[in-house]
Amino acid sequence: MGKKFTTPYEVAYYDGDITRKMTIPSMLAVVIKTSEEQSDALERGADYVASFGLGWVITNYEIHITRLPIVGEKLTITTQAMSYNKYFCYRNFWIHDEEGNECVLIKSTFVLMDKENRKMSSVLPEIIEPYESEKITKIYRGEKIEKIEAGEFLPYRVRYFDIDGNQHVNNAIYFNWLLDVLGYDFLTTYEPTFINVKFDKEVEYGQEIESHFEILDDENGKQTRHEIRIAGQLYCEANMTWKKSQ
Amino acid sequence: MGKKFTTPYEVAYYDGDITRKMTIPSMLAVVIKTSEEQSDALERGADYVASFGLGWVITNYEIHITRLPIVGEKLTITTQAMSYNKYFCYRNFWIHDEEGNECVLIKSTFVLMDKENRKMSSVLPEIIEPYESEKITKIYRGEKIEKIEAGEFLPYRVRYFDIDGNQHVNNAIYFNWLLDVLGYDFLTTYEPTFINVKFDKEVEYGQEIESHFEILDDENGKQTRHEIRIAGQLYCEANMTWKKSQ
Repeated sequence: MGKKFTTPYEVAYYDGDITRKMTIPSMLAVVIKTSEEQSDALERGADYVASFGLGWVITNYEIHITRLPIVGEKLTITTQAMSYNKYFCYRNFWIHDEEGNECVLIKSTFVLMDKENRKMSSVLPEIIEPYESEKITKIYRGEKIEKIEAGEFLPYRVRYFDIDGNQHVNNAIYFNWLLDVLGYDFLTTYEPTFINVKFDKEVEYGQEIESHFEILDDENGKQTRHEIRIAGQLYCEANMTWKKSQ
Repeated sequence: MGKKFTTPYEVAYYDGDITRKMTIPSMLAVVIKTSEEQSDALERGADYVASFGLGWVITNYEIHITRLPIVGEKLTITTQAMSYNKYFCYRNFWIHDEEGNECVLIKSTFVLMDKENRKMSSVLPEIIEPYESEKITKIYRGEKIEKIEAGEFLPYRVRYFDIDGNQHVNNAIYFNWLLDVLGYDFLTTYEPTFINVKFDKEVEYGQEIESHFEILDDENGKQTRHEIRIAGQLYCEANMTWKKSQ
């Protein structure tokens, strides 16, 4: 397994929702920043990767939430490149609180994308080497994402501030669309304990997406299923497990 | 004039737009955080203010931009309570770069709002004293905001993540609506040098707003006029001056 990299982070008021718990979009923005800092420290930042005509794209997150951090908490964000095969790089993130308890574990899959034709590239040794992650042949297949059976949806227009320096919608923004549809009552009653999300296609500026969802009862709370579609095509899919908030 | 309070801030990738310049919503989120930190340091945080049944509300920003900070820059954020009269508290914010050059000056007006009936309260000495700002009788009237003559608009639904711990839409979010309507071409061609914004009424979760705008030619670039309306009522108005980006 690869080198670990750790940075401190204090949860700002703007990272919190109305319950003052850290939002999933903020959490992802902050952990991704940590991996960018590691890349910069290893001289493998976005500019270096772009010199090969490539850019990193995240295709999957598996988010395991023990406890959502709260506004004002001093956290430690750790990231580690775990392993890689011909096309996929597996990276973990951990969020710990001040007492060293694990709040969140995020398993992610990164791929290198050709910036011109937006096709996947095989992993380049020059880019990956300094992280010292393990080369494997196995392809990690995450938990299956269950499809929506009978859902409803809300439309969302992609906004200027939703796109980042890569000209595409930042992954964290998808969660704004995925979660917003659940509504105030649901989101103030339940909190997520597990999220499995797959990004299938890249959403671009000017598009209007449909955020489809279905809420199901679960032994200990609720389960939700999500699909982001444009003109019938699947762009993103997710399953989430929820418990009652304390 | 009152006590100054300064914090460092490094511009994160998620604070930047596609040109890697810091966005106005991020800028405001970060400066407000600094004033909250000052309040906490003076034991006049949100909980103390809430013990009187009150909360701070911002009614006006005048943003003077010399240069927009860039992703990765190490900034210094300074805030100072300047003066107050019976109802209005005037607070300045400065953003300086690493060489000590002023990038942005923000003049703001704060009022205390009764949390129950959402009416303005007079300024309480207990709350304001530790900031050591000057008591004045004059009411500062900012530059007049010119009305839209012939505009168009886009609708925006208030989302769950747009509301903050105060159950109202965070001021920074209004800028998402105000600016997004200008579109990709405008926003990548021009950058703001001056913004004057007035918040007239509070937008709440579940509402759908109309972001009206008009683009006018100006000697050195463009001028834009903005109004956020719900059912014909004015909630927010702004004038902005723009120059061509370098």
